[in-house]
Amino acid sequence: MKRTVSIPNYYTDLALETCEQLQSESGELNGVEVTSEEHESHGITVTWVRIADETGVKAMGKPIGNYITLESPSMKESDPQAHEEISKIIARKLGILHPLRDDACILVVGLGNWQVTPDALGPQVCERMLVTRHLHEAMPRELQGRVRSVSALRPGVMGLTGIETAEIIMGVAKRIRPDLIIAIDALAARKTSRINATIQISDTGINPGAGLGNKRAPINRETVGVPVIAIGVPTVVDAATLVNDTMDHMLRALRQSVSQDDAFINMLDEMGNEERYELIKGVLDPDAGNMFVTPKEVDAVIGRLAHVIASALNIALHPGITAKDVNRYLN
Amino acid sequence: MKRTVSIPNYYTDLALETCEQLQSESGELNGVEVTSEEHESHGITVTWVRIADETGVKAMGKPIGNYITLESPSMKESDPQAHEEISKIIARKLGILHPLRDDACILVVGLGNWQVTPDALGPQVCERMLVTRHLHEAMPRELQGRVRSVSALRPGVMGLTGIETAEIIMGVAKRIRPDLIIAIDALAARKTSRINATIQISDTGINPGAGLGNKRAPINRETVGVPVIAIGVPTVVDAATLVNDTMDHMLRALRQSVSQDDAFINMLDEMGNEERYELIKGVLDPDAGNMFVTPKEVDAVIGRLAHVIASALNIALHPGITAKDVNRYLN
Amino acid sequence: MKRTVSIPNYYTDLALETCEQLQSESGELNGVEVTSEEHESHGITVTWVRIADETGVKAMGKPIGNYITLESPSMKESDPQAHEEISKIIARKLGILHPLRDDACILVVGLGNWQVTPDALGPQVCERMLVTRHLHEAMPRELQGRVRSVSALRPGVMGLTGIETAEIIMGVAKRIRPDLIIAIDALAARKTSRINATIQISDTGINPGAGLGNKRAPINRETVGVPVIAIGVPTVVDAATLVNDTMDHMLRALRQSVSQDDAFINMLDEMGNEERYELIKGVLDPDAGNMFVTPKEVDAVIGRLAHVIASALNIALHPGITAKDVNRYLN
Amino acid sequence: MKRTVSIPNYYTDLALETCEQLQSESGELNGVEVTSEEHESHGITVTWVRIADETGVKAMGKPIGNYITLESPSMKESDPQAHEEISKIIARKLGILHPLRDDACILVVGLGNWQVTPDALGPQVCERMLVTRHLHEAMPRELQGRVRSVSALRPGVMGLTGIETAEIIMGVAKRIRPDLIIAIDALAARKTSRINATIQISDTGINPGAGLGNKRAPINRETVGVPVIAIGVPTVVDAATLVNDTMDHMLRALRQSVSQDDAFINMLDEMGNEERYELIKGVLDPDAGNMFVTPKEVDAVIGRLAHVIASALNIALHPGITAKDVNRYLN
Repeated sequence: MKRTVSIPNYYTDLALETCEQLQSESGELNGVEVTSEEHESHGITVTWVRIADETGVKAMGKPIGNYITLESPSMKESDPQAHEEISKIIARKLGILHPLRDDACILVVGLGNWQVTPDALGPQVCERMLVTRHLHEAMPRELQGRVRSVSALRPGVMGLTGIETAEIIMGVAKRIRPDLIIAIDALAARKTSRINATIQISDTGINPGAGLGNKRAPINRETVGVPVIAIGVPTVVDAATLVNDTMDHMLRALRQSVSQDDAFINMLDEMGNEERYELIKGVLDPDAGNMFVTPKEVDAVIGRLAHVIASALNIALHPGITAKDVNRYLN
Repeated sequence: MKRTVSIPNYYTDLALETCEQLQSESGELNGVEVTSEEHESHGITVTWVRIADETGVKAMGKPIGNYITLESPSMKESDPQAHEEISKIIARKLGILHPLRDDACILVVGLGNWQVTPDALGPQVCERMLVTRHLHEAMPRELQGRVRSVSALRPGVMGLTGIETAEIIMGVAKRIRPDLIIAIDALAARKTSRINATIQISDTGINPGAGLGNKRAPINRETVGVPVIAIGVPTVVDAATLVNDTMDHMLRALRQSVSQDDAFINMLDEMGNEERYELIKGVLDPDAGNMFVTPKEVDAVIGRLAHVIASALNIALHPGITAKDVNRYLN
Repeated sequence: MKRTVSIPNYYTDLALETCEQLQSESGELNGVEVTSEEHESHGITVTWVRIADETGVKAMGKPIGNYITLESPSMKESDPQAHEEISKIIARKLGILHPLRDDACILVVGLGNWQVTPDALGPQVCERMLVTRHLHEAMPRELQGRVRSVSALRPGVMGLTGIETAEIIMGVAKRIRPDLIIAIDALAARKTSRINATIQISDTGINPGAGLGNKRAPINRETVGVPVIAIGVPTVVDAATLVNDTMDHMLRALRQSVSQDDAFINMLDEMGNEERYELIKGVLDPDAGNMFVTPKEVDAVIGRLAHVIASALNIALHPGITAKDVNRYLN
Repeated sequence: MKRTVSIPNYYTDLALETCEQLQSESGELNGVEVTSEEHESHGITVTWVRIADETGVKAMGKPIGNYITLESPSMKESDPQAHEEISKIIARKLGILHPLRDDACILVVGLGNWQVTPDALGPQVCERMLVTRHLHEAMPRELQGRVRSVSALRPGVMGLTGIETAEIIMGVAKRIRPDLIIAIDALAARKTSRINATIQISDTGINPGAGLGNKRAPINRETVGVPVIAIGVPTVVDAATLVNDTMDHMLRALRQSVSQDDAFINMLDEMGNEERYELIKGVLDPDAGNMFVTPKEVDAVIGRLAHVIASALNIALHPGITAKDVNRYLN
């Protein structure tokens, strides 16, 4: 009944959670480097996961590359100071992850469905971007030479367009030839505590099997012909995750009451987290399969997160102007 | 470890579910009459629960009165024919539950928060009502004598107003003196299959301990001085309910694998549904406590349900005009 | 063909515009005191109009009382610094206009239709208020004694509720007995340059004949039994105003080309502004009568104005806490 | 002071209005065929304008091709019967204008800004389309062979994306290779009575100088390499049009009062409509330049128009299924 390592990774979009899972199972991580830093203010932690080689790829089930995770409980609060700090950290990390020439053209892609709040993060970031590509000569004189060429696309979701999102991006990228694509997406996490409190930045693009269970073509350098930075925030957990997490707590609580070698408890213990998750998915009420779990105040939180990420991008992409300027030029 | 019957009923807004729970526990229902009818089309079932006396009140934990539940899986689909049929059935039941004089004045109250989709049912029904109270002399001649005086109020929720919803309704009712209040609300159910697929109509008003865990003052004839019909649809389940339901399925599946008198299984069995639910609530991740579980397409579904209920009310309250007319005179 | 003074005032909600009109006609203003101050930053002008006696009432067509107008073109821009300054000025003026005891209870009323963007200012202010009335004992310890009791009501508009807005407010005020009502409303102005660039604060309440042509009962101390401060922003001009203003410019431009005593020009000149306005209203395409004129970016602008006013109120009503705190406690 | 015919046509998107203007000026129309039909029900008129040759192109300022205009005051009312009738007429006209093979692939493009209500028609049509391109094998069996391959794109507007809309469409069209593009857009008209009461269908694509004054690249067979049907509804008039129309009425009314050969009146008469329009634009308050004129109930009306057009397209593109089916398969 021992589980193999071949399937662990499909169930979380966060490389950090895959690391935690692997370490809890086998205590080691080959081919993966993990470093982390604590910031003094606002409880911000940054973890940098680097998948270095094929061993890491196999263990993690994710492509070679960098996965930076920024966590802070203040992210979901109404805390402008913390959010400003987080935006600045993201901007700095982006600069390290993918340095840009002054004349680079960047296409920001807001993935997701703007009509479903927890999936609207990407589109909402686009709305807050200082878009400049079309201004060229019309650029206000005081901005010339201080902003990069930035465009923003909301491709929609396949259920509404009938078109693979990757195809739309490829088509547009082929015409406007950006130097870099930055794709924003809502993710799924495995810990409810991470919902709306975590931002992952990765230089490996968006890869299939993503959070909300929507099958889709990858969006990365191979498919769209341009480097792709992905920025994601887990905004939902699925019903099975919630059940599994809760059952875990519950078993721990109940275990005390029964004898040490209870056959049932042993069985559940042997099963391992992942197998139990699959079991839960199997018995889940079919109506629940179509459901998601999200905080009550999701509208306000998604708006704030979109602001944090858009600010980070505006700072990183338009280094010659201040946040104040950005506000002024955003309609 | 036997559970008493004193607390079972607070956890579902649906009298029908309380009945089911009591019958599954003790096999009998004193002081409660249940009759049900199957409609041939669209899989519609109507169940009429009447709490007749104090025995029923004690068992059910709900006031004396009538609770009509209409169920149909077509309710959450895009199925205009089924919806029209459901609207007509609701209109008929309302006529039986509370016959109205021709010159009656009715105040429709849309409870809930219009900014949180699963809680926006009441406000959305108000938007679709044919409101006539202010027209009096200005009434288009062809409508005179064919429509009743109807007004519609969206009082908001206490977290946003700082005022008990019941107080707002009392204040307004005291001024405009309606003959009947019809209050629309989103409820919580215990079965995920009932979400957005069930409508409950009751002549007992809205009572505390309601679904989304918002404590509030009751809205009924005692508090507002006017008969109150409540119409509710379960639009969410809470996280603990989802976990409990799923664990139930899971235990049943696992039980086969272990010996008959496993101490742990016995313990869980003895616990009973409600106790287990409380245990789950206790161990639930605090972040999950603030979460709700809702179908992905909740926006579209709430809109359709609001249309079904508003149509039913427009038919019931304005008997002299057809659905076609209503459409014409709505905004 | 001389116009009388009996009707001039019904066509603008801004006392300041009535003053301008009267001065341009007769050069004098009896019974009215006007003082104004220029602020150095952000082009902010504050004008204080006081209607002192019945002569003023007759001339202005508005009740005795104070009308403070704050104007700044920065109001409609995305300019957080200017907006913060404006919020502080409003907060100060409110303190002068109506000093409050520490234990005063305030009811903020957001008038208007939240579904029609230019009319949604009031409801949007309510959404941004730090509402505290319901917290009483549950108040976070650090806020105790630092915030006043504030509640917020969005009564809706009569077309949607069937109830006079004044009646809803009276009913609620009678129950919760506030010491002061602050009513927020969208207004109509006569100059397109004032749209979304002007805030009027008055201690005379809301009076009939208001901007968007909606007849309604007054909301003032007489009707609701409590002092009423009205805060309004002109968000639309009507079609006739736009035509009239433009024709005025045009006639001035064309006049040069024709002889001094052209009969037609003389006729238009003699007519006076108001008479011409009425003439235009008369010949206006009936389809245009139902139309309003509003800036393209009205959604963003209304959101910013709501933020400015809500900040002002949060500062004025909760003096023991900072803007930072307000952000923290607003979900 | 006689005006030339070289510039008349830039100011309305409706070929029908250009015809009316030309006929009112010169009484004749060379190179243009106009036929019209009255429908008995719902006051529906259909006018078919065909620009046949270069003479027509020159006179009309629009490309060779067909421009079908459907007018009905019922369009802006809540009148489901009339709307169903209009949808069917549009579907029929589309079939005549551009017959489709059974296996044709169609890309529907919803132009405009979904955040500005009068410009949101295109995006809202997309939301109501039965999109099928991605279903292929996954197609419910009962739909196979009865629906065409339809996809739907909302490219956004250049101010928000930084990309010419035509470029986005070209990029996507190059990848998914549709046989036909149908582009939906909000237009500007010259008569307020036509606002939201007129639909124009054309086989010439979308051409520059369009209504809301947004310069943009044409979207037609030449630019995107695929035939383009454009469907447009005038949803706004600009401020100058409103002023001009009203002044026209007014001058007519005033003219009676002055002598026959008044110099001023003569001057205005000689000017002609277009010159006066330009003059008005010149003197228009700069703040008004950024304003648009739209009916108060624009939200509801745009939603209904989107429904009318989407129904027409669903009928025309998926001939094997009924309106009822469409409702069932739409989310």
